[in-house]
Amino acid sequence: MLVVKKFGGSSIADKDHIFNVAARCIEDYEKGNEVIVVLSAMGKTTDGLIAKAHEINPKPSKRELDMLLATGEQISVALLAMAMDALGVPAVSLNAAQVAMRTTSRYGRAKLKRIDTERIRNELDARKIVIVTGFQGINKYDDVTTLGRGGSDTTAVALAAALHADKCEIYTDVDGVYTADPHIVPNARKLTEVSYDEMLEFASLGAKVLHNRSVEMAKKYGVQLVVLSSLTRAEGTVVKEETKVERMLVSGVAADKNVARISVIGVKNEPGIAFKIFNLLARRQINVDIIIQSIGREERKDISFTVAKTDLADAMDLLNENKEMISAQEITNEENVAKISIIGAGMTGNPGVAAKMFEALASAHVNIKMIATSEIRITVLIDEADVNRAMRSVHDAFDLAD
Amino acid sequence: MLVVKKFGGSSIADKDHIFNVAARCIEDYEKGNEVIVVLSAMGKTTDGLIAKAHEINPKPSKRELDMLLATGEQISVALLAMAMDALGVPAVSLNAAQVAMRTTSRYGRAKLKRIDTERIRNELDARKIVIVTGFQGINKYDDVTTLGRGGSDTTAVALAAALHADKCEIYTDVDGVYTADPHIVPNARKLTEVSYDEMLEFASLGAKVLHNRSVEMAKKYGVQLVVLSSLTRAEGTVVKEETKVERMLVSGVAADKNVARISVIGVKNEPGIAFKIFNLLARRQINVDIIIQSIGREERKDISFTVAKTDLADAMDLLNENKEMISAQEITNEENVAKISIIGAGMTGNPGVAAKMFEALASAHVNIKMIATSEIRITVLIDEADVNRAMRSVHDAFDLAD
Repeated sequence: MLVVKKFGGSSIADKDHIFNVAARCIEDYEKGNEVIVVLSAMGKTTDGLIAKAHEINPKPSKRELDMLLATGEQISVALLAMAMDALGVPAVSLNAAQVAMRTTSRYGRAKLKRIDTERIRNELDARKIVIVTGFQGINKYDDVTTLGRGGSDTTAVALAAALHADKCEIYTDVDGVYTADPHIVPNARKLTEVSYDEMLEFASLGAKVLHNRSVEMAKKYGVQLVVLSSLTRAEGTVVKEETKVERMLVSGVAADKNVARISVIGVKNEPGIAFKIFNLLARRQINVDIIIQSIGREERKDISFTVAKTDLADAMDLLNENKEMISAQEITNEENVAKISIIGAGMTGNPGVAAKMFEALASAHVNIKMIATSEIRITVLIDEADVNRAMRSVHDAFDLAD
Repeated sequence: MLVVKKFGGSSIADKDHIFNVAARCIEDYEKGNEVIVVLSAMGKTTDGLIAKAHEINPKPSKRELDMLLATGEQISVALLAMAMDALGVPAVSLNAAQVAMRTTSRYGRAKLKRIDTERIRNELDARKIVIVTGFQGINKYDDVTTLGRGGSDTTAVALAAALHADKCEIYTDVDGVYTADPHIVPNARKLTEVSYDEMLEFASLGAKVLHNRSVEMAKKYGVQLVVLSSLTRAEGTVVKEETKVERMLVSGVAADKNVARISVIGVKNEPGIAFKIFNLLARRQINVDIIIQSIGREERKDISFTVAKTDLADAMDLLNENKEMISAQEITNEENVAKISIIGAGMTGNPGVAAKMFEALASAHVNIKMIATSEIRITVLIDEADVNRAMRSVHDAFDLAD
């Protein structure tokens, strides 16, 4: 069996953690499996390097920043190879150029295009554990690129797809996917299985277990993912195609506090205004989530939407600069908001799910500001202060507890 | 004019130093010159990485150690490029793979074989300052190698040779080559010019200004070197082919405390014994310097030689393990010794130079333990405690002071 195992920065933060990871990889190897390991940078290394860059240049060139950041994973892979060697198991570390992991040219947010498998295949055939730098690639100029946040997960899934791995294990600091954040909902239950689509909704809603890009790629190439902890022996959650015949209506509840609402008030009620607004934001790489447009009764209408809190200042600047072009009378925003969502492949065609959620929120005295739905998700925008109460109430209402 | 400028770790230890280096490079660039910069790892980065490796594995694989260490220079080059960008000058950093700097396969002590100049040439043509990682290369497996101590000097000279640079400036923490170490001989004088051969003798004797390999390469390819300080505007010392018609008998005095004496006592007085001893040491990569063999009068003779202090323990172990094979009755060693040497292309065919040196030592009550000479050098082994007194006395005897 060929297994890809990905470990994040906190799993390899120091010597003890590195040997723990080495031991777990060797366990698999000694069962006769072929093992590929993908690593992030150790602990807070990446943040430290970014701070160093900003000390030199508050707006460092993205090419040079990628050149700098890529050293973080290279340190990780070399040290893990040394640890495995110390434990008597042959291992080899490879950086993105050595693999090679070919990406698009775009620094800081490159996309994987093509992975050469020959070098890795040769090292596996020589019965070595192959340790690959996550998060990075090289572009057509042979320059170093990075894949952006969640990039190491994407590297792992891409390698699993390219080498037809039997599974791709993503080790994190939680031991699986839960029906809700256990810090907020203490009786949350770990899911043994979740579909790609459900996982995508969990990820996009800030569950922070897996990055969306990696789940999308896993779905596209049919890579079976397992989310589990590097520190416990708990079984983890399998992410794969929907298989269960009967299943839960709702799989879980997710919250996302990295959200802010913007309202563009009194724009002209004519075609093209919404396009102008969202095109502006898209060109600045600002993602927009829930969108609500008031029904235009007269000459003017209002458009409200949510963006990540971290994008709020940028978005407000941009809209204010273009206030005339988008014909807005006023632009307001609200920061103390949050989204909570219920997710479940089983809710399709099951009427009454939304009503049940709204009932649970009402009984907890939570006011709903905006609503958005997809096939397998219902999201509401509420006051940030109400999040924990709302989560618990909804979690109870759908009987998700252990 | 094309200039290669090499800066060591202490020259780029922090933000202020990095901007100082950036400014000096930009000065050249703005005169219309083409500028290539070669950097070592910042400050004590390499030592820190080695410590990390040893924490994981006391005997790390050399391949993985090179993979780890190479990150040090990559951090340097990215940060300097950011600094130049902050100062408004276009710059691009390149690691060994990007250049590409092709080396032999041997990790930790690789030798440069071939440098592709296309990428660098293109970047220079685009009027960018090109910043290259020193000390490292890639071998035929595309694996990262390092060149060993002094490797960044070698990188700089090799680039200067490959790109036909007009000069190669090596910035260090001293501002040139002196007639003696100014810490020991306060009235030592800076040389404006020194020949490659003299520089080789200075380097091999621990003057620590330039690494031998880089000087040898500079001599082979006729690269004009300049040794100067990154912190002052002093003119530095030019290292080039002998040009002066008349010149000083002796250019300088050098000391080397990293030396120990080993005596192999009572070996059989028959052919092949010396070969056996030195072949043993060579195969373990231990360099031997001064060698003295007693005149074999009867069945037995003694062979004494010096090694680096850092190799003493290894050498003693090896010789004791093979005591019978080399037919030794006893193996002794002495650690508290040092070499001092006078160097000068002018001493060839000038009788009396050695006598003058020995007279100076005698008048300073310094006992001579061993003597070795070359065409342009006379070296004596003395007690380590006598070094400073001996240096000053010899320096005075040859009128080297300012």
